[in-house]
Amino acid sequence: MNRGKVMKIIEGGVTSAKGFMAAGTAAGIKYQNRKDMAMIFSERPCVAAGVFTSNVVKAAPVLWDQKVVRESESVQAVVVNAGIANACTGEEGMSYCRQTAQEAGKLLNISEDSVLIGSTGVIGMQLKMDRITEGIRNLVPRLGSTAEAGTEAAESIMTTDTISKQVAVQIELGGKTVTIGGMSKGSGMIHPNMCTMLAYVTTDAAIEKELLQKLLSRDVQDTFNMISVDGDTSTNDTLLVLANGAAGNEMIRTEDENCRKFEEALHYVNGELAKMMAGDGEGATKLLEVKIIGAADKADARKLAKSVVGSSLTKAAMYGNDANFGRILCAMGYSGVKFDPEIVDLYYEAEGKKMLIMKNGLAADYSEEEATKLLDHKAVTVTADLKSGDASATAWGCDLTYDYVKINADYRS
Amino acid sequence: MNRGKVMKIIEGGVTSAKGFMAAGTAAGIKYQNRKDMAMIFSERPCVAAGVFTSNVVKAAPVLWDQKVVRESESVQAVVVNAGIANACTGEEGMSYCRQTAQEAGKLLNISEDSVLIGSTGVIGMQLKMDRITEGIRNLVPRLGSTAEAGTEAAESIMTTDTISKQVAVQIELGGKTVTIGGMSKGSGMIHPNMCTMLAYVTTDAAIEKELLQKLLSRDVQDTFNMISVDGDTSTNDTLLVLANGAAGNEMIRTEDENCRKFEEALHYVNGELAKMMAGDGEGATKLLEVKIIGAADKADARKLAKSVVGSSLTKAAMYGNDANFGRILCAMGYSGVKFDPEIVDLYYEAEGKKMLIMKNGLAADYSEEEATKLLDHKAVTVTADLKSGDASATAWGCDLTYDYVKINADYRS
Repeated sequence: MNRGKVMKIIEGGVTSAKGFMAAGTAAGIKYQNRKDMAMIFSERPCVAAGVFTSNVVKAAPVLWDQKVVRESESVQAVVVNAGIANACTGEEGMSYCRQTAQEAGKLLNISEDSVLIGSTGVIGMQLKMDRITEGIRNLVPRLGSTAEAGTEAAESIMTTDTISKQVAVQIELGGKTVTIGGMSKGSGMIHPNMCTMLAYVTTDAAIEKELLQKLLSRDVQDTFNMISVDGDTSTNDTLLVLANGAAGNEMIRTEDENCRKFEEALHYVNGELAKMMAGDGEGATKLLEVKIIGAADKADARKLAKSVVGSSLTKAAMYGNDANFGRILCAMGYSGVKFDPEIVDLYYEAEGKKMLIMKNGLAADYSEEEATKLLDHKAVTVTADLKSGDASATAWGCDLTYDYVKINADYRS
Repeated sequence: MNRGKVMKIIEGGVTSAKGFMAAGTAAGIKYQNRKDMAMIFSERPCVAAGVFTSNVVKAAPVLWDQKVVRESESVQAVVVNAGIANACTGEEGMSYCRQTAQEAGKLLNISEDSVLIGSTGVIGMQLKMDRITEGIRNLVPRLGSTAEAGTEAAESIMTTDTISKQVAVQIELGGKTVTIGGMSKGSGMIHPNMCTMLAYVTTDAAIEKELLQKLLSRDVQDTFNMISVDGDTSTNDTLLVLANGAAGNEMIRTEDENCRKFEEALHYVNGELAKMMAGDGEGATKLLEVKIIGAADKADARKLAKSVVGSSLTKAAMYGNDANFGRILCAMGYSGVKFDPEIVDLYYEAEGKKMLIMKNGLAADYSEEEATKLLDHKAVTVTADLKSGDASATAWGCDLTYDYVKINADYRS
């Protein structure tokens, strides 16, 4: 990657940036004997930016965080539980957010309106507040700034996830090293439109709040909003970025060169976290990347790419390693975008090998056997060239498997 | 059903109306040793109305039928093959439509532009024209007006369908008995937006072509367009109605009382054919009916109902007999419709038993055990009351099962 020149990818997550600590614990929220509560804490006040689910049905912690991001001058902590989503829980659910923030605020010695809250899990079930309280009391003394502490937090927000998801990068801004690190969870009910994904990114950059929000809102269009596991946009989707300024860089106030570098690094972190979620979709055996190139319009390219990663038939074919290109063209066809199917070229790609599958809307002269072999990889890219312009977009999803059905037919039991 | 007074439901299908004949045969289009070609023939010229897929990628037979319905004064025959969709097949695919119509026209002694064509199956593969030609030659001498002939045709258009789908009703118009009968197929790639559904309805009513088209276009909004198996809108969806006037009723020219009766009967036939497709969705174990009531707006009610029947998570929960109401409210929430989730009541219903599951957006006091028992039926109705108006809509779908994945991971092999 030629970004290597300006951006250094490092091991780590939410504790990689200076001044951030994290912890995880098993609070017994719904599951027993597994970590299910996490905390992030910044030693210094942070500006915060957030994007949230577009679902009309918003979980209580989403409503809480929206208010905090909008109204609080600074934030300093995030408390997350897995197992129960605290969605469709009415006033009682909102009161648990307040109690959570109060308890954490008291123990961390910060104001309750500087505490962000996240929940993921079953909808329509009330939290057991005594367990949350006990969880907070266990988390505070465990807070640490090590990579291990970050990993513990990342593991503690998992539900049906099979791997914990973390990424971190470093850039240089005016001689100062700025670090951005993040963690996310998300495996089912994933069709973020700003997204049950939760993602938390921490950075020690000094950056103005409004600018941070602008960069974040713009970036999710090409990262989190371009993934889909099952087409279900959750009630709890939350992406938060906390910036505490501990790097000592000159405050980023305008969209200058330093801002561009920061944005690129943020994009990398968001993109990697999003792709990790898509590849770890419930029951998934592979990551499906769909690139639309040669489109007349960026918005059209995004719609086409998302339509393909969202197609149940395409996803099932991918699980079967079946080069069923007709389903891909079909999914493009019902995306709502106008395009000329008779000039579309389609390629399958995996591990550096690329095959032309369709040429000008018709089956190319390819070997089914070779195509099946190519599709039998952990990451597959489908590229559709519309040959109608310069716009492009990429979406990420996964295959549809028996295990997706199994997980979701049994989830609550 | 109190429609019994004006409408009589009879056994039958496309041969029930006077003057219609049908046949089916095993032509070896793709599969061996199973019926895969059907023909419908009317002794007299018919007016025809049709609705077709909204997919940008339209199969050759869709383009052919659109032209015939638009430009031909009358039609007299339909030739359908299963196994290969004749979609993404370019000029070669179009030429097979022409050759099919020519061959059928010659043998039936009618003009080629009075022959409608339907295909369903794999996309991107060319038809073997010699088999189609041979199929037509076998079909013509087999044409018959018996119920058995209709059933043979209905069986011959099946792909992954597990049951053949037929329905027929009779009404009285000015002392004359008018019959409407139909057949359909469709099991996967079903998310009709006017639909790989194919549906053919025949009637001996005398009705003007423009009026028939108007009635049909209106009715699909509440019937075929309200079903979804997997969210994939096919390249081949076709619904055709052929009316030959053999009943001898006074020509229906305006939206009078006779028209209203006819429309109600057509609605019943379309609705039943649509529901049969939803219940026989690929791998499905049950029919899921979703009713939205108390909506402020009919279009909103339709969107909400379709969003729920389209939700993979809701469908998987239904397979697991899991009363996971949060997924239903979640799917309503991302439908794009604005509503107040905090006043929604939700009911589950099966075999006459109804349970309140959610009251004003919160979990009602129900027994999970009882709910699971209730969901373990072949047909389940979910009703969501928005308490915001008088509009309502109903959508039909099915559960998401291991077999859906199996069928679609293996389909082409």
